[in-house]
Amino acid sequence: MADGRLAGVVERTHEPIRLDDPDDTRLDDFRDLTTADRRPDRPGGRGFVIAEGTVVVRRLLASRYPLRAVLGVPKRIAELAVDLADVSAPVYETSADTMARVVGFHLNRGVLAVADKAALPSAEEIARQSRTVAVLEGVGDHENLGALFRNAAALGVDGVLLGPRCSDPLYRRSVRVSMGNVLRVPFAQLEPWPAGLELLRGHGFRTAALTPRPGSLSLRELAAGTGGKVALLLGAEGPGLSEEAIAAADVAVRIPMTGDVDSLNVATAAAVAFYELADRG
Amino acid sequence: MADGRLAGVVERTHEPIRLDDPDDTRLDDFRDLTTADRRPDRPGGRGFVIAEGTVVVRRLLASRYPLRAVLGVPKRIAELAVDLADVSAPVYETSADTMARVVGFHLNRGVLAVADKAALPSAEEIARQSRTVAVLEGVGDHENLGALFRNAAALGVDGVLLGPRCSDPLYRRSVRVSMGNVLRVPFAQLEPWPAGLELLRGHGFRTAALTPRPGSLSLRELAAGTGGKVALLLGAEGPGLSEEAIAAADVAVRIPMTGDVDSLNVATAAAVAFYELADRG
Repeated sequence: MADGRLAGVVERTHEPIRLDDPDDTRLDDFRDLTTADRRPDRPGGRGFVIAEGTVVVRRLLASRYPLRAVLGVPKRIAELAVDLADVSAPVYETSADTMARVVGFHLNRGVLAVADKAALPSAEEIARQSRTVAVLEGVGDHENLGALFRNAAALGVDGVLLGPRCSDPLYRRSVRVSMGNVLRVPFAQLEPWPAGLELLRGHGFRTAALTPRPGSLSLRELAAGTGGKVALLLGAEGPGLSEEAIAAADVAVRIPMTGDVDSLNVATAAAVAFYELADRG
Repeated sequence: MADGRLAGVVERTHEPIRLDDPDDTRLDDFRDLTTADRRPDRPGGRGFVIAEGTVVVRRLLASRYPLRAVLGVPKRIAELAVDLADVSAPVYETSADTMARVVGFHLNRGVLAVADKAALPSAEEIARQSRTVAVLEGVGDHENLGALFRNAAALGVDGVLLGPRCSDPLYRRSVRVSMGNVLRVPFAQLEPWPAGLELLRGHGFRTAALTPRPGSLSLRELAAGTGGKVALLLGAEGPGLSEEAIAAADVAVRIPMTGDVDSLNVATAAAVAFYELADRG
């Protein structure tokens, strides 16, 4: 680590540090990445936030997560030169082969950044600052969760609240699939469940449960009839929202579909709903 | 194969045939599935249509593709009993372990069906019979293509036309990600490109290119202003539609977004557009 700190001095000239020994301890943050995002009390876990590829690394650099280090092949580090100009954490350059030996697999995006986790905002802060939020129940699939954050960022959702049985949006795979948008869209745990929805109601939100059940409002009817704050409740693909969650919401809404009841992926259904809600008055 | 034909006789009682020898030649259709969907002139390729899991197997059974055989663990075969009642192709039952040894990997869905390909409809037939079609350019990613068909089926798209550089919707991974909807939504090649769009125009379609470029109509404006047939042109994530394709379309349309230009996955952008078009008068 002493070397890593020293490296910070070199950073004034924005010169990356070349490392070619895969056993160099300055590369320890990047070792065995398949498990480095796990909680520190789990095997291999260090609880890091890991960004892969120039797009996602850029979003990590712009985020509130404290950067620990960047590692990449020269071509990718050069592409990030402007973004790395003000970075005080060490920036390491190496070959694709050495990178693969350090991280434990071949990484075709050629650049990685590692950051520490940071305290989450509270659900209350998100409720106060948002006009549209997504509230998730049981979205445990990392790719679906990442895709949902990507869609939230693209379609004007201000925050995401995590009910029970959701996975951590900061897992590496979710970070990647979200294109780094889990680092931009604020999220928080919402507890207890579903009674925590009262918090949203207290902030003036209309809570709407997305469910294919008959008798639900169509999304368009919801958007047309709701000018103010909306919290959209989404359940996992397959089981969908629990009965308790649907009962706790102000209204049930559906996407009119021609196919079977569960015919859209949860992140896709969310995108359609976010799109419709973005257009409300 | 002789045994397989004989097995057809047993089928009147809907009893599956138990096989426990992974080298049994009756299982040859299921061998090395990672390549069996390739064209027969490629290594390992047999050009089969392969369905995995009860949902997708059911859709294959209901499709026009000529079934060759079904293989599953007893639990999954039992779940499909009603669907298999009228099937004249052989139905084989075995253990999960034997299945894994035959197909070359562990298959957690527990049931497979294999069918022969069949002639595609013509683009002209699809144009004649459809009100809404998707027209794809350069959608080469199997998962995106599968997801797009899933969304097309859910949101009322009648057919898909494949321009240049699209992958085959009948690849195993696309079949699976589509939830079997590539077997239900008709598709055809559209040639030449983009001049083939004239065919659609001749059938009364308004052709709309989805692109984030400024000056495009919003999707809602398109839907509000178009009561009749619509063909929606979609390009691959990243490059998007080619200049020629956009120029050949009647109109350019966009999804209003808060994020970056390419912030939605192509299948997700398609879902949003299909949703909006489904609501037109």
